[in-house]
Amino acid sequence: MTLNEVAKLIIKLNNIEILTHNYPDGDCLGSAFALALALKQIGKNARVITTDKPKNFGYIFDKYESAEFEAEHFISVDVADEKLFGEVNKSYEGKIELCIDHHKSNRVNAPYKYVEENAAAAGEIIFELIPLLGAKYDKDIADCLYTAISTDTGCFRYTNTTPRTMRIAAELMDLGCDTAFINKEMFETKTKARVELEKQILENLIYCADGKCAIIYTTREMTAGLGDDETEGIASIPRQIEGVLMGITVREKENDYKISVRTNSGIDACAFCNRFGGGGHVAASGCTLKGDLKSVIETLKNAAEEVL
Amino acid sequence: MTLNEVAKLIIKLNNIEILTHNYPDGDCLGSAFALALALKQIGKNARVITTDKPKNFGYIFDKYESAEFEAEHFISVDVADEKLFGEVNKSYEGKIELCIDHHKSNRVNAPYKYVEENAAAAGEIIFELIPLLGAKYDKDIADCLYTAISTDTGCFRYTNTTPRTMRIAAELMDLGCDTAFINKEMFETKTKARVELEKQILENLIYCADGKCAIIYTTREMTAGLGDDETEGIASIPRQIEGVLMGITVREKENDYKISVRTNSGIDACAFCNRFGGGGHVAASGCTLKGDLKSVIETLKNAAEEVL
Repeated sequence: MTLNEVAKLIIKLNNIEILTHNYPDGDCLGSAFALALALKQIGKNARVITTDKPKNFGYIFDKYESAEFEAEHFISVDVADEKLFGEVNKSYEGKIELCIDHHKSNRVNAPYKYVEENAAAAGEIIFELIPLLGAKYDKDIADCLYTAISTDTGCFRYTNTTPRTMRIAAELMDLGCDTAFINKEMFETKTKARVELEKQILENLIYCADGKCAIIYTTREMTAGLGDDETEGIASIPRQIEGVLMGITVREKENDYKISVRTNSGIDACAFCNRFGGGGHVAASGCTLKGDLKSVIETLKNAAEEVL
Repeated sequence: MTLNEVAKLIIKLNNIEILTHNYPDGDCLGSAFALALALKQIGKNARVITTDKPKNFGYIFDKYESAEFEAEHFISVDVADEKLFGEVNKSYEGKIELCIDHHKSNRVNAPYKYVEENAAAAGEIIFELIPLLGAKYDKDIADCLYTAISTDTGCFRYTNTTPRTMRIAAELMDLGCDTAFINKEMFETKTKARVELEKQILENLIYCADGKCAIIYTTREMTAGLGDDETEGIASIPRQIEGVLMGITVREKENDYKISVRTNSGIDACAFCNRFGGGGHVAASGCTLKGDLKSVIETLKNAAEEVL
């Protein structure tokens, strides 16, 4: 299916609900609301469905208010699997007519699918879809799409960033999107609770294997009351340290410990996690361990010292 | 003077030394070495002069080796003031023939000057100059210029980033520049000493004025043995905290305390610093205070509570 065919399909529909994934992020929200704004422009009823409304994305929600209508058609955006609709939106499973996504692993069941795995963000696809729908870019759409693209690329820092990403961002800036505000909200703001968590993490940082491995941990006490957006990204802290080839993050959960392993220089994180029944990618893998915190860390330390 | 005239001037010269500023950063190094590589291509002798060779920029220095020659002409790149040549390169003062820069405040004395204050980085100017010299872009030049532009914009996050910045970055990526390596080196790596410093800073973080002001400090003991690159950017830590309108950083120096004030939401950092004989911009200013750490912090706290 080409993007032109996607546009032709959408043009025939009305009364559309746009589905996003649970724990909604900048890409699914920015892409979904940009699409909704474009659909409104061409005279369609559309509504964005989210499991919740994260406070830091309030400015996106504020850009769009849906008219009342009875939903007839369902489009998912940035959703790799119907399971990701979450408990609240479970009822949408099996109803999706058109799935627009950029995840290679996409498994949504839908008669029409457009999955472009080379897109750094679903926002890149929506950017190209909008003129095909006969809609015009405007500042609100640009703000939504800049949010989508900048958040999914770590503000153009991650390896998924391509020349196309940069050129689309340039066009969005030409359209007047408020990069100063969005970059500050998305990349330069930490809650007081997050700062406190970082302090505690650094206080308990453990080096082993001659400094080639760094281990951090969070206990349930440390993360009590913190939102997902506040604990996001902590797994990147240990690997960022100079000389560290393997960064391990241990998160205490209700009955066990969730382990995230990030590596540099080709060290195989997946093989490491396989030892404990986990897996993933060469540079980023995970597993689960049981026991008390001290013994879990001891186990990981010993394994790291063996490998490095 | 147009950039075309700059190119015509350079084409007439040979045996060129390219001057950078002290505490060399990514923009002056990347721009200077990109220019040197282009000059070599068109058959010129050129050499980049730096006050030192920061370890993290080693990959830039490795790209270029100068032939032996006696210098006849001197070009400065990204240098706003001849004072910034530093003690080591003081002898170059008054010798600069051509000054290429993007600082509005440029005060270099030179018969030929090209200062483009809307360029986010000197690297943007060098990018446009290279084809005018009759040189061709290649991967090494692209690596140098991507380093220049990405570092001066905080990886496209700062407000100096323009659509032109993004489009130039896209071209550099098309040329095969190694963004994965450069982004990791520049933005995803912290020394162990820096991580330790951040821990200590967070441990001593002070909130006042109902959380609208955050104060951090470093003592000489905390920063002993740390390079400038390792203490850079700490002044942005307090302002990043949600709800903080004024972030104050206190750095113990030999005989006094250097104060950096960063503000949000239009709070006047300059007026605040004026009280203490300092000044600067509305959102970023500085001043110097004498006394012991405790009394310095008390003074700042009281002043902040008065203002906020």
